[in-house]
Amino acid sequence: MNGFKEIKGGVTAAKGFTAASTAAGIKYQGREDMAMIFSEEPCECAGTFTRNKVKAACVKWDKELVSSGKKLHAVVINSGIANACTGEEGFDACRKTAESVESLMKVPYDSVAVASTGVIGMQLPVDKLIKGVETMTGSLSESIESGTKASKAIMTTDTVNKEIAVSLQVDGKEAVIGGMSKGSGMIHPDMCTMLAFLTTDVNIDRGLLQKAVSEVIDDTFNMITVDGDTSTNDTFMILSNGLAGNKAITEENEGYKLFKDALFHVCRKLSRIMASDGEGATKLFEARVTNARTKEDARILARSVVGSNLSKAAIFGCDANFGRFLCAMGYSGAEFNEEDVELFFESSEGKLKVFDHGVPLEFDEDKAVKIMKADEVSVLINMNEGSADADAWGCDLTYDYVKINADYRT
Amino acid sequence: MNGFKEIKGGVTAAKGFTAASTAAGIKYQGREDMAMIFSEEPCECAGTFTRNKVKAACVKWDKELVSSGKKLHAVVINSGIANACTGEEGFDACRKTAESVESLMKVPYDSVAVASTGVIGMQLPVDKLIKGVETMTGSLSESIESGTKASKAIMTTDTVNKEIAVSLQVDGKEAVIGGMSKGSGMIHPDMCTMLAFLTTDVNIDRGLLQKAVSEVIDDTFNMITVDGDTSTNDTFMILSNGLAGNKAITEENEGYKLFKDALFHVCRKLSRIMASDGEGATKLFEARVTNARTKEDARILARSVVGSNLSKAAIFGCDANFGRFLCAMGYSGAEFNEEDVELFFESSEGKLKVFDHGVPLEFDEDKAVKIMKADEVSVLINMNEGSADADAWGCDLTYDYVKINADYRT
Repeated sequence: MNGFKEIKGGVTAAKGFTAASTAAGIKYQGREDMAMIFSEEPCECAGTFTRNKVKAACVKWDKELVSSGKKLHAVVINSGIANACTGEEGFDACRKTAESVESLMKVPYDSVAVASTGVIGMQLPVDKLIKGVETMTGSLSESIESGTKASKAIMTTDTVNKEIAVSLQVDGKEAVIGGMSKGSGMIHPDMCTMLAFLTTDVNIDRGLLQKAVSEVIDDTFNMITVDGDTSTNDTFMILSNGLAGNKAITEENEGYKLFKDALFHVCRKLSRIMASDGEGATKLFEARVTNARTKEDARILARSVVGSNLSKAAIFGCDANFGRFLCAMGYSGAEFNEEDVELFFESSEGKLKVFDHGVPLEFDEDKAVKIMKADEVSVLINMNEGSADADAWGCDLTYDYVKINADYRT
Repeated sequence: MNGFKEIKGGVTAAKGFTAASTAAGIKYQGREDMAMIFSEEPCECAGTFTRNKVKAACVKWDKELVSSGKKLHAVVINSGIANACTGEEGFDACRKTAESVESLMKVPYDSVAVASTGVIGMQLPVDKLIKGVETMTGSLSESIESGTKASKAIMTTDTVNKEIAVSLQVDGKEAVIGGMSKGSGMIHPDMCTMLAFLTTDVNIDRGLLQKAVSEVIDDTFNMITVDGDTSTNDTFMILSNGLAGNKAITEENEGYKLFKDALFHVCRKLSRIMASDGEGATKLFEARVTNARTKEDARILARSVVGSNLSKAAIFGCDANFGRFLCAMGYSGAEFNEEDVELFFESSEGKLKVFDHGVPLEFDEDKAVKIMKADEVSVLINMNEGSADADAWGCDLTYDYVKINADYRT
């Protein structure tokens, strides 16, 4: 990779970040369901949040923190209950959680972000939250293991925990970006809130941090589709404490570019893992749109294809039913002429053209099945109308009821 | 009902309309898969078609006919293959079908509409189509039974055929509006093309016929949601041959109003049957939005709620998980404040308030389950911000994989 490499770890990989987790018994029993990230050194932060008009209390809380310009010390996360549609009482739960960190860690309550994932319309048990915070503040650790345990504590219907870290040289100093995320269940789609928390010791100006995040998110986390529903809780935040000791990045120089490339790698990898871990999924389903009229069109087209139940069922059934992709492109809202479009299936098993400038091609069904049986299947869509590209990621739709659909064409 | 009443029959109920059907072996075996409607008397027509950019060849054909101002004599429909994404060859199939009607029935080829539903990206077998037309032109009948058989021949994953007729008095003359439609499978969503064909003997100006259709469709067929996918083939057409003998309706008078009311009844009823026949559905799921800021907001909100997999799974599981409705409203794009919203569940078993101006209410779970076990379940959403109302219809999401989701909250 260009100037960075993957290393072990997640949110505790960067200097000065500790983590803890605990079984607070908020809704799940017999597993950890709270996690905390902490930095003694105050952190710049950046973030992006759900566009749903109905925002969870914690999203309102965090948006306020990010836009306030204040520095952060901690993030406290729970799984099981989303704290959405909970009115004043829900917002109080955020404040009380932050205040408990304040009193225990001697940091301002408004330096504490909070996040939740789980059931909507149910109040959080504040006493259990605060007890959880007490336990966690007593066991914060910079070990890799504590980061991994934190990434497991925030899982809902996820089947694998999701973390990654990369190291990079900025201004001659060794620096790290690490992170954890949770997805993206298929069976329990109201649990599929996307939460992602990144930590870095890179010293970077807050405005540039937000700029890098905004640019990277549009081509990574915003290109995952599990179902059409946008959660009330979707949250991405990054904290940077500057402990790498590099000269602060205050302009879009080489250091900024390298940081952004490494951030893109981290986000892309987490996105792909989240997509392939859609509940019940047997494979990663990728749509790669090329030569669209505009970047926005490319994104819309790619997302529409991987988001369509029809496309996903075809991918599960290894059925090269390309008409479903064209149908999804057609209602996406993007501009194109079907007479310009070329469609291919591709995987580690090969590549096959199935549609050429408006005309369906005769093709080898056996070869199509072989290609589509791979763990990662891509549909390549050449729009032949411009020069904008975009990739989107999803998973197949499985289960018996879908099987019938997937087997339907042949 | 105000000025009209339901009568037996469907597309052959109105004077001068005949129908036929046949097993052409286009894709299905052992069942009828082609239908034809015919009127010796030339018909005014109106229609509305899919907004998908990728339009089936037959949709392009019919749109041309409707906008040309020419009068129609016939509609020929097949199930099994959609004739979408089929290029020039697909359009030729439409023309050849129409030409075969021309030579057999001595009516212009451009007075013949065609429609298809089924697999996308596969060519129609033109020889079988033409043979089907030959058979059908020899067996056209004005019997009610022939209309019913036609409504069965156009079914794909539908489990019940869908037809209705009403009689009304216009200008002292007995007149009829009849129709048939097909939905709306859940398992095979690329078969869920909505096709609807209405016939009437009311004498009405073409422009007013189109106006009535456009106004009625937005509150009926356009308010059904089965999945998010918009078909390449969705088609609604109405033919009026004027044989009722009423003085032509040429302005928005009492006769027009009555016609439109009866048309609304026919379309609303077909819409509800289609929604409740979503494949695997166990019940009709209705969202009734009241007091929204604008009519468009009301429609968007109602459709978003019945279209959400989360909402539908909750309805199946008899789980009053109202947070899912609020989530779906939140990403719908409509403007509202959650602090204004009131939410109720209602069915033949009673009514229950669950959310009141931003605050979740404690409620009797047993009563909620009882209400939701009914065959038709409504969620009433009072926005308290304006005076616009809209209803939307869908069905529950069933099957084992959904069961897990539906049982999740409790």
